[in-house]
Amino acid sequence: MSTPIRVTVWNEFRHEKRNDKVKAVYPDGMHAVIAQALKAAGGMTVRTATLDEPEHGLTPEVLAETDVLTWWGHTAHGDVKDEVVKRVQERVLQGMGLIVLHSGHHSKVFKALMGTTGNLRWREAGEKERIWTVSPGHPIAQGVGEYFELAHEEMYGEQFDVPQPDELVFLSWFQGGEVFRSGACWTRGRGRIFYFRPGHETYPTFRDANVQRVIANGVRWAAPHAQQAYNCLHVKEAMEPIPAQT
Amino acid sequence: MSTPIRVTVWNEFRHEKRNDKVKAVYPDGMHAVIAQALKAAGGMTVRTATLDEPEHGLTPEVLAETDVLTWWGHTAHGDVKDEVVKRVQERVLQGMGLIVLHSGHHSKVFKALMGTTGNLRWREAGEKERIWTVSPGHPIAQGVGEYFELAHEEMYGEQFDVPQPDELVFLSWFQGGEVFRSGACWTRGRGRIFYFRPGHETYPTFRDANVQRVIANGVRWAAPHAQQAYNCLHVKEAMEPIPAQT
Amino acid sequence: MSTPIRVTVWNEFRHEKRNDKVKAVYPDGMHAVIAQALKAAGGMTVRTATLDEPEHGLTPEVLAETDVLTWWGHTAHGDVKDEVVKRVQERVLQGMGLIVLHSGHHSKVFKALMGTTGNLRWREAGEKERIWTVSPGHPIAQGVGEYFELAHEEMYGEQFDVPQPDELVFLSWFQGGEVFRSGACWTRGRGRIFYFRPGHETYPTFRDANVQRVIANGVRWAAPHAQQAYNCLHVKEAMEPIPAQT
Amino acid sequence: MSTPIRVTVWNEFRHEKRNDKVKAVYPDGMHAVIAQALKAAGGMTVRTATLDEPEHGLTPEVLAETDVLTWWGHTAHGDVKDEVVKRVQERVLQGMGLIVLHSGHHSKVFKALMGTTGNLRWREAGEKERIWTVSPGHPIAQGVGEYFELAHEEMYGEQFDVPQPDELVFLSWFQGGEVFRSGACWTRGRGRIFYFRPGHETYPTFRDANVQRVIANGVRWAAPHAQQAYNCLHVKEAMEPIPAQT
Repeated sequence: MSTPIRVTVWNEFRHEKRNDKVKAVYPDGMHAVIAQALKAAGGMTVRTATLDEPEHGLTPEVLAETDVLTWWGHTAHGDVKDEVVKRVQERVLQGMGLIVLHSGHHSKVFKALMGTTGNLRWREAGEKERIWTVSPGHPIAQGVGEYFELAHEEMYGEQFDVPQPDELVFLSWFQGGEVFRSGACWTRGRGRIFYFRPGHETYPTFRDANVQRVIANGVRWAAPHAQQAYNCLHVKEAMEPIPAQT
Repeated sequence: MSTPIRVTVWNEFRHEKRNDKVKAVYPDGMHAVIAQALKAAGGMTVRTATLDEPEHGLTPEVLAETDVLTWWGHTAHGDVKDEVVKRVQERVLQGMGLIVLHSGHHSKVFKALMGTTGNLRWREAGEKERIWTVSPGHPIAQGVGEYFELAHEEMYGEQFDVPQPDELVFLSWFQGGEVFRSGACWTRGRGRIFYFRPGHETYPTFRDANVQRVIANGVRWAAPHAQQAYNCLHVKEAMEPIPAQT
Repeated sequence: MSTPIRVTVWNEFRHEKRNDKVKAVYPDGMHAVIAQALKAAGGMTVRTATLDEPEHGLTPEVLAETDVLTWWGHTAHGDVKDEVVKRVQERVLQGMGLIVLHSGHHSKVFKALMGTTGNLRWREAGEKERIWTVSPGHPIAQGVGEYFELAHEEMYGEQFDVPQPDELVFLSWFQGGEVFRSGACWTRGRGRIFYFRPGHETYPTFRDANVQRVIANGVRWAAPHAQQAYNCLHVKEAMEPIPAQT
Repeated sequence: MSTPIRVTVWNEFRHEKRNDKVKAVYPDGMHAVIAQALKAAGGMTVRTATLDEPEHGLTPEVLAETDVLTWWGHTAHGDVKDEVVKRVQERVLQGMGLIVLHSGHHSKVFKALMGTTGNLRWREAGEKERIWTVSPGHPIAQGVGEYFELAHEEMYGEQFDVPQPDELVFLSWFQGGEVFRSGACWTRGRGRIFYFRPGHETYPTFRDANVQRVIANGVRWAAPHAQQAYNCLHVKEAMEPIPAQT
């Protein structure tokens, strides 16, 4: 695909305004850092949208012009309007890619597409996370080594209540004793979904080169390819002759 | 499992009361025929529930005592209360098996668990359906031959908008030229879900010996095994020592 | 990937020399027609190799310079040397893509990578095949409609003895009453494998525009992305301290 | 299934005869301990077979009477005759269950069925392993909690070169910093295969109650259900009329 991938980076953007620790790490919001990284990766045009904009910045027009949407939310999942959730879900089913980041595992959008609770174990202790590649041939693992490390992160542990991934790309080891399926792929309708675990708001995770590379790889993987319309048929359109029933 | 599987057979039960053609085929409702077949299969205790009962017959008490729920709905998906849909979904995620029959592909319960539209192609022409076994070693195919036929059925054709099945058991060939993934398995949370295509209300499909066998096999496959609770952890409970951050 | 994909089109090339009917359809061999189509698709450099060349044309040097190998064999699977089979398998596990065409389902290479017999039902009756898209968002389905037809083909029917595909892209309907999983994807090691059913030697299937498009899409999907080496570790290299056992 | 499952426990049985440390842990061989545990689990008849018996104890007669085979090998994979490997593979494809234990990941049988190298990272340091349940509703996890621990085990780490599992049941955390897909399910032909990681010969792993429970659950899960024969068809047997080609 030689035309650029049109990415919309969505962020809840509340922690960064209210919490000094987070503000110090992401003064312009996590979305600004993610968007900057994707621009630098090349081959993409990037815009951002946040919760407190009208319609959360996700109007039908914006979604129609979005090939891949990235989603970070945490403290205000309940403030996302059901109408917008439905709109995003429908757009994914029609082919828009979706990259769900970190605490987005509990977003309405992700839960609607998975059909499960998205529940998991967690712990905030600033511990070490080592992310192992289990599918080294997968496009999302391109350029990532056997593993990479984050010195300090929130822990997410199994059991992670999601449908079994179509493809599992990364597994995390945590210093405190847990493991987690950190990079996982699903297809829903025509849309591709990638969940990527790292990204707690109090750590500079989105400034990490490996994390940025994985998100960019995820965007490229999730970008839509084909588009077709659904149809329903009536008897007169049968492709082969069906004798009348007696 | 030597204790009987507790099955609840749910039916919309509207067509059978209003349409003479359907009434002639299923005078006591499709649920009566399905329940009778499951009782005859052995190893199960079976009750029924229908849309027009209070809470659609699916109170928290009934669901708590149900190991596997079978679901047939068609004309009144919209009449199923969201509260009951949520209750059924949660119960599946906790481990209750779910057998979705025919037009149940568009039920709120199935769509909530799949995250997709459940859309498909269809045609009512009373054509022949031949159902092929693609996973002959699967428990749901036990006792079914390489294929079996239904002389007259409604056609459902691809593309069927569901997540890729964890296991595909049956494929249908239709006289008019279509194919369909007719028997498909998913796990959501701790619950197992089996979708089985045949069962249009105007044909005696649920009286067919092969169809009855597959539904009974499906119930046995979907019956819950393990039960565990979710937990979240706090830092003091870390399994391995984590040095304090400086 | 802006550098061209290096494709090697492998053909048994025996039927075309011995059977007048086949020769009439493919005077220069099926590989010539497939290679021509891939060149026309763009973004690829294409060479061919055939069974009766030294080492079947698949020397270590040729394989090292091949990103994606396509394979057509039928009457002489047994003549392919085990040494070459092993070489191809190892190259796939290291990341080379593999497109297995039609009767290649019984090739030593495919069976070694699948671990199953590759058995299926078949019938030569020149019947109609209609190929349905079940994963419309998949890159291999790009540009293909809801279905396409081949007026005359050999029939392959289920049960097809292969591991459940990672992704199922196409299903075939046959005039004589069978169905088949006609387009299926697997990953083995770092290599991606696509099996595509059509292509009996007596029909001009490889001249069909849809078939050519699917094979080109398959090549693009199977082209390798990442490359990493395996390692084994010794205790002194443990990433975290392990106290000595007492 | 009320008739007992017929299990054959296969062991290389070399370490236990040659290495005093191993002999101290398993004086009668690992197979004796595994067989004893399966007998105690109930519902099974259990025999054993070892490498140095004629035909490795796996004659056609023994395999014909085996519903599920468990396999432990390590130092002598190369001594297993190709003829017996082929026999076991064929029997699995026909429906026999296979439980592959620990270093069996490099056995000829497992590699033939997977199509991959089975390579992984490893380290012998007697470190702690914590095994997490990721599919709590799966029959193989029945009765196992959120996790269980082994105080001392050999480490196996990702990337584990196997096809993506049909179902992933357990993940391991290792003290030294690695993770591993420790419990994984595949179906090949009609046969079910379960790989379970723990079981280094120098530790009393097969005496652990959780390990014994998982192996017994695995045997029950892998026991065959249905049996059908393959067929090939000729034109005269077409199910639907095919007009003669002109």
